[in-house]
Amino acid sequence: MDFFAQYDAVLTDAEKALVAKARDFCAGEFARELQRSFAEGVPFPESWFARWAELGMFGLQARPEHGGFGASYMCKIRVAQEMAQVGFAAAFCMNHHQGSATRVSKEGSERQRGELLADLLAGRTLSTIAMTEPQGGSDVAAISTTATPTRGGWLINGSKAWLTNGLMVDCLMLLARTEGGPGDGMTTYIVRFPRGDSDTVTREEILVPGARAFRIARITFRDHFVPEWAQFTAPGAALKAAMGVINAARVHVAAMCVASLHAALCEAVAYCETRVAFGKPLTAHQGLRWELAEVATRLEAANALVFKAALAIQTGGQPVTLAAQAKKFAVDTALWGLDQCVRAVGAAGASASLRLAMHQAEVRMAAYGDGTSEILLDRIGRGLAKDYPMRSEAS
Amino acid sequence: MDFFAQYDAVLTDAEKALVAKARDFCAGEFARELQRSFAEGVPFPESWFARWAELGMFGLQARPEHGGFGASYMCKIRVAQEMAQVGFAAAFCMNHHQGSATRVSKEGSERQRGELLADLLAGRTLSTIAMTEPQGGSDVAAISTTATPTRGGWLINGSKAWLTNGLMVDCLMLLARTEGGPGDGMTTYIVRFPRGDSDTVTREEILVPGARAFRIARITFRDHFVPEWAQFTAPGAALKAAMGVINAARVHVAAMCVASLHAALCEAVAYCETRVAFGKPLTAHQGLRWELAEVATRLEAANALVFKAALAIQTGGQPVTLAAQAKKFAVDTALWGLDQCVRAVGAAGASASLRLAMHQAEVRMAAYGDGTSEILLDRIGRGLAKDYPMRSEAS
Amino acid sequence: MDFFAQYDAVLTDAEKALVAKARDFCAGEFARELQRSFAEGVPFPESWFARWAELGMFGLQARPEHGGFGASYMCKIRVAQEMAQVGFAAAFCMNHHQGSATRVSKEGSERQRGELLADLLAGRTLSTIAMTEPQGGSDVAAISTTATPTRGGWLINGSKAWLTNGLMVDCLMLLARTEGGPGDGMTTYIVRFPRGDSDTVTREEILVPGARAFRIARITFRDHFVPEWAQFTAPGAALKAAMGVINAARVHVAAMCVASLHAALCEAVAYCETRVAFGKPLTAHQGLRWELAEVATRLEAANALVFKAALAIQTGGQPVTLAAQAKKFAVDTALWGLDQCVRAVGAAGASASLRLAMHQAEVRMAAYGDGTSEILLDRIGRGLAKDYPMRSEAS
Amino acid sequence: MDFFAQYDAVLTDAEKALVAKARDFCAGEFARELQRSFAEGVPFPESWFARWAELGMFGLQARPEHGGFGASYMCKIRVAQEMAQVGFAAAFCMNHHQGSATRVSKEGSERQRGELLADLLAGRTLSTIAMTEPQGGSDVAAISTTATPTRGGWLINGSKAWLTNGLMVDCLMLLARTEGGPGDGMTTYIVRFPRGDSDTVTREEILVPGARAFRIARITFRDHFVPEWAQFTAPGAALKAAMGVINAARVHVAAMCVASLHAALCEAVAYCETRVAFGKPLTAHQGLRWELAEVATRLEAANALVFKAALAIQTGGQPVTLAAQAKKFAVDTALWGLDQCVRAVGAAGASASLRLAMHQAEVRMAAYGDGTSEILLDRIGRGLAKDYPMRSEAS
Repeated sequence: MDFFAQYDAVLTDAEKALVAKARDFCAGEFARELQRSFAEGVPFPESWFARWAELGMFGLQARPEHGGFGASYMCKIRVAQEMAQVGFAAAFCMNHHQGSATRVSKEGSERQRGELLADLLAGRTLSTIAMTEPQGGSDVAAISTTATPTRGGWLINGSKAWLTNGLMVDCLMLLARTEGGPGDGMTTYIVRFPRGDSDTVTREEILVPGARAFRIARITFRDHFVPEWAQFTAPGAALKAAMGVINAARVHVAAMCVASLHAALCEAVAYCETRVAFGKPLTAHQGLRWELAEVATRLEAANALVFKAALAIQTGGQPVTLAAQAKKFAVDTALWGLDQCVRAVGAAGASASLRLAMHQAEVRMAAYGDGTSEILLDRIGRGLAKDYPMRSEAS
Repeated sequence: MDFFAQYDAVLTDAEKALVAKARDFCAGEFARELQRSFAEGVPFPESWFARWAELGMFGLQARPEHGGFGASYMCKIRVAQEMAQVGFAAAFCMNHHQGSATRVSKEGSERQRGELLADLLAGRTLSTIAMTEPQGGSDVAAISTTATPTRGGWLINGSKAWLTNGLMVDCLMLLARTEGGPGDGMTTYIVRFPRGDSDTVTREEILVPGARAFRIARITFRDHFVPEWAQFTAPGAALKAAMGVINAARVHVAAMCVASLHAALCEAVAYCETRVAFGKPLTAHQGLRWELAEVATRLEAANALVFKAALAIQTGGQPVTLAAQAKKFAVDTALWGLDQCVRAVGAAGASASLRLAMHQAEVRMAAYGDGTSEILLDRIGRGLAKDYPMRSEAS
Repeated sequence: MDFFAQYDAVLTDAEKALVAKARDFCAGEFARELQRSFAEGVPFPESWFARWAELGMFGLQARPEHGGFGASYMCKIRVAQEMAQVGFAAAFCMNHHQGSATRVSKEGSERQRGELLADLLAGRTLSTIAMTEPQGGSDVAAISTTATPTRGGWLINGSKAWLTNGLMVDCLMLLARTEGGPGDGMTTYIVRFPRGDSDTVTREEILVPGARAFRIARITFRDHFVPEWAQFTAPGAALKAAMGVINAARVHVAAMCVASLHAALCEAVAYCETRVAFGKPLTAHQGLRWELAEVATRLEAANALVFKAALAIQTGGQPVTLAAQAKKFAVDTALWGLDQCVRAVGAAGASASLRLAMHQAEVRMAAYGDGTSEILLDRIGRGLAKDYPMRSEAS
Repeated sequence: MDFFAQYDAVLTDAEKALVAKARDFCAGEFARELQRSFAEGVPFPESWFARWAELGMFGLQARPEHGGFGASYMCKIRVAQEMAQVGFAAAFCMNHHQGSATRVSKEGSERQRGELLADLLAGRTLSTIAMTEPQGGSDVAAISTTATPTRGGWLINGSKAWLTNGLMVDCLMLLARTEGGPGDGMTTYIVRFPRGDSDTVTREEILVPGARAFRIARITFRDHFVPEWAQFTAPGAALKAAMGVINAARVHVAAMCVASLHAALCEAVAYCETRVAFGKPLTAHQGLRWELAEVATRLEAANALVFKAALAIQTGGQPVTLAAQAKKFAVDTALWGLDQCVRAVGAAGASASLRLAMHQAEVRMAAYGDGTSEILLDRIGRGLAKDYPMRSEAS
């Protein structure tokens, strides 16, 4: 059975066509350039964002009336999985920008859409979500970036760290504490700024070797002005909105993890089928064959769990525990499985001649966003008594 | 979401009623007697077979025209899961006999049904499949029990080992080499014999501490006569028939494993919610809570994988790789998870005051039947190149 | 290199002779009777305590002037390892009583030695340490058993649970809160009582299937009188004394764990060398051979760590972290490794025909005494900053 | 107890002074430059080889009469561990060259020493062992590089791959098949060549992202001439000589792995002690503290096992099984433990601001040289029956 058959079975024909288009895009030159850039330790060329935009992919989930495809959650997953098979980081980055465009289309005001949406869909403006701060890590409640009322808008002060596409973005969906006015509380602002230097914005790379493709940066604002129309959520409503999409985000990352591990396993098997040692192909050695069989086994478990969670979201649920379990298990399985594949292949597995090393380096970043293992275990742990009740035995 | 909701969603209303009936049966006295017998190191009373027969459960999958319910594979799984939550061994043993009745109903000749089926359905005759031999283990091709033609039938010679319900059965669906006639090859025979001593049949317990409920025995035949009508498969056709049901058998055992682990986790959580140490309940200690959360996570992965495999079988497939993966992963997860639950609970987890120790001792037997881990890894390993093909990159 | 060579290298010749004597005792009939009793689900015969006493082994560490051997800690470990290879529970139980005799010899008053020591050494009186209570578990500070002053002594009230040899003992080294007098606090008392029923003592088995050899019981005292001479530690000094021996106790249990796993691995290898499947011995199948090789690898790591900790204690240290790590790692490795051995062997591994199942069932109890995994992780965790300091880089 | 105390206890005072000298060298600027180069994805500057040579460290094991220190195996390990704590790759590379110098001093002819040794000790000539070939991988018997007799020497033809320091070396200790003369068989040659281009030598980088510090290359010879004096072993004697040092090499790599993991754990603990989340330091969260405690536990097991193997070699043994187990366990533990540390720390753990990511990327290469996991398991597996004999039970 095809690895993605369960997912595909719930797509419309139009959505299947989008997935096929994504698959074509990812094969060939794009895949090779991702691998080449990784080998050289540089981010893949920015031009691929524009080419992805040409396919309309940043409008994947934007409303049709705004020029988007209006695709379902499951379709978004499948598109991301196609890309994650040739590069987890690229899939992660493309999806992050797409997510901003989707939010503007679905939740934005007419003014916000007018100001921004066409640029986002065309990839002329690049945006990302900005929640995490240098000191706060996973602790969202500790956010200290502020928005202070000023004439005609707000002044933003504070730092955001670990920004995906951070070296490129000229727009952030930024979470800040609104202060000093009616309607205090956590608020999301659309914050635009030039790519180059500026008096109010400083940008600094956070160097993550092996993960340069994410272009991670810290961006600091000092009295940076945003106009009134840029307030994206009502004051105090931002955290709730963020929580409303966290389950979908977790499962989405999990789905990319299984796709990357799937691609890595296929590559490892192909290599070991032809590489000869001690007179026969590597896969003809029972011990090594069992190692890969074990990877395949856990990969399928992860895939089944991720699909189950994805289906729950696709059909409108908020499966808190299941989403946390899917991300926890998919990330753990992917990191373990990639390590097994790399080692089974031998030294070539670590080299730039295969894609295994790239998958291993990039998927690692999945452990941090949208809930670390520790956050997820706490989430699952808090629900144990409710989720796993003792069965009554009265009879 | 209820742990078994995915399975239940594909049942008919009549099947749901059967599952509910099984659930009622398993609650209360049956559950307590299983636990008590385990604690005393003896098999649970035979009388429960008759009471299960009264519900018609040995005819669960027998054809309606033969007095059975004609239930689907998924229904059989759910019934077994209900019982596996209060005792894996009991579920395994009841199902083994039910399997014989099903085969006689579905594949038997009219004569065979006439001779046997009513007794099987009523539990007056108890039967089990007999393939494994003392020397052969997992190597079915090495079977050395023979059936030699004699006037009016065959003479059976040889030993069968590791027979479930072996201390009770008076009938076997026995795999033998048919010799010396037209139509040589592996053949299945219906072999009946008295429970007590006999000149041609010797019975010997195989003592497995902790697993007495399986009543495992070795039965040896010396010139034991079976009549002509008792030849169940055509000579040479038995292995193929056995292979035809192996995937379903593997997934079925896997489904019972996840049910037992689920029950164990619920029991462990309930215990740890009330047991106090160092001033607060055990589950209020973060480290221990994470241990149980990790069990829950892998359990859900196993459950999703097992369901996926079960659905493939329910809809007519022969998912060789998937079934092997489901059993491998479910057994590994159950044994690991039960160990975690037992240890989290503390010394009480090993004692007879909870059901955890019984689950741990009994589920262990799942590792042996229907493919050991080693057999399964070999099966998955042989399919790697076909199941995980390298994606073409031409573009 | 012999598995125990590191330990033996620090023994005196007289100690080596004691180890050899223990080895002879354990071979043959004793080993077979342990296995037989386990298979039958009953404790091994009490008479073996008397036979072990005949060798003088309960005086292993008692002072020579009291009739003991005055052997070192390392010698005690080696004697216990010899027995743990044929039965973990027996080794655990014999050692528990020996520990009481040692304490009376080394720390007891002349009166206490006169009342008790000859009986302890001869095995006529059997004693064990009694700390744990039904509600307290690992939380020693929560002990609620009391000793109240009365004319000529104290009255003991309270329950002690999880007592090793609890079904046999007629003496306890019991930890209680001394109340109502000068010198309050935790105190250890020598508490004697008849084996049979009594007005002031109730005994109840705690049934642990698979671990009947430990004869675990709960003993409850109601106004049970102990004379003045029976106060073993000064009021308030008991906890400190208990903590003083906890490191040695942890490493001792760890050392028995590696001995049991070593014996199990040897048994599994021997079985797999001769058992044939698919035309060759099991060990000729690379995958299975690797499974056993991995067990051997982790076993050697555990052995090296345990020896390092034992040597630190032998030379007078109190290696708190190292002892906790040794027990944590040895128990985990033994339980994992025994599971691997049992599964590699196939169904025979679970049966009573080999000793593997007995090792697996009995070693499990090592996880509970002298610090559960959770207690040990907390102990190690509290020392992290001190034990693993960041290296200064000034240059 | 200091992590390296066991090793240090068997050093002479002069050796301890060498270790201290190495420790001073590694602190400060060297450590910072290794980290900086890793972050930039480039090899650390070559000039550090010369500075290490100035300390005389390439003569660590060369004979005193040749200008070396004549240090013991244990001393070599400790020096390498000091460096491995600030950079595994640097330690690996420095040691590789030092190994060549040692062999020339101890096994070379007077002519060979005269031609080469001063340059090697001064780091003017850099050399490495060259066994592995592009097609052969771990299969040494498949070597196809040839040495054909010619006037005054031999002509070398063939390719050597995965050469440590391969981008820098101008000398190889090269394993080839000597052909066409008396004394055929595997032979080691000293092969010198210019760093720049040449008609007979081609050099090509093997790009391993994250491991640029190893400067891995493939070098191909076409009719490259080596003079008569350059034959280092007698024809046919090279493989035996290589096998004679393989145990020491395995344990040496294992010792560096535990040193790197030790440094990583210390760095992770220090970070988590100060980093605050949810109102308290990370190490004040029990679950995370347990994760690090588990790393500490397995690290200590690896350390104890590695030391045991190192001591056996130091005292003249050839502990084949033990050395294989030490490498297998140390590499597995280091890769697992580094992953745990990186994840516990959070996203900072993957960034270039700490040394964790460098350790993780570089230690990975330990899995390939001197026996992959698969080779090691086979080696251990072949000895199981001899190393783990069943204990006789005659009594």
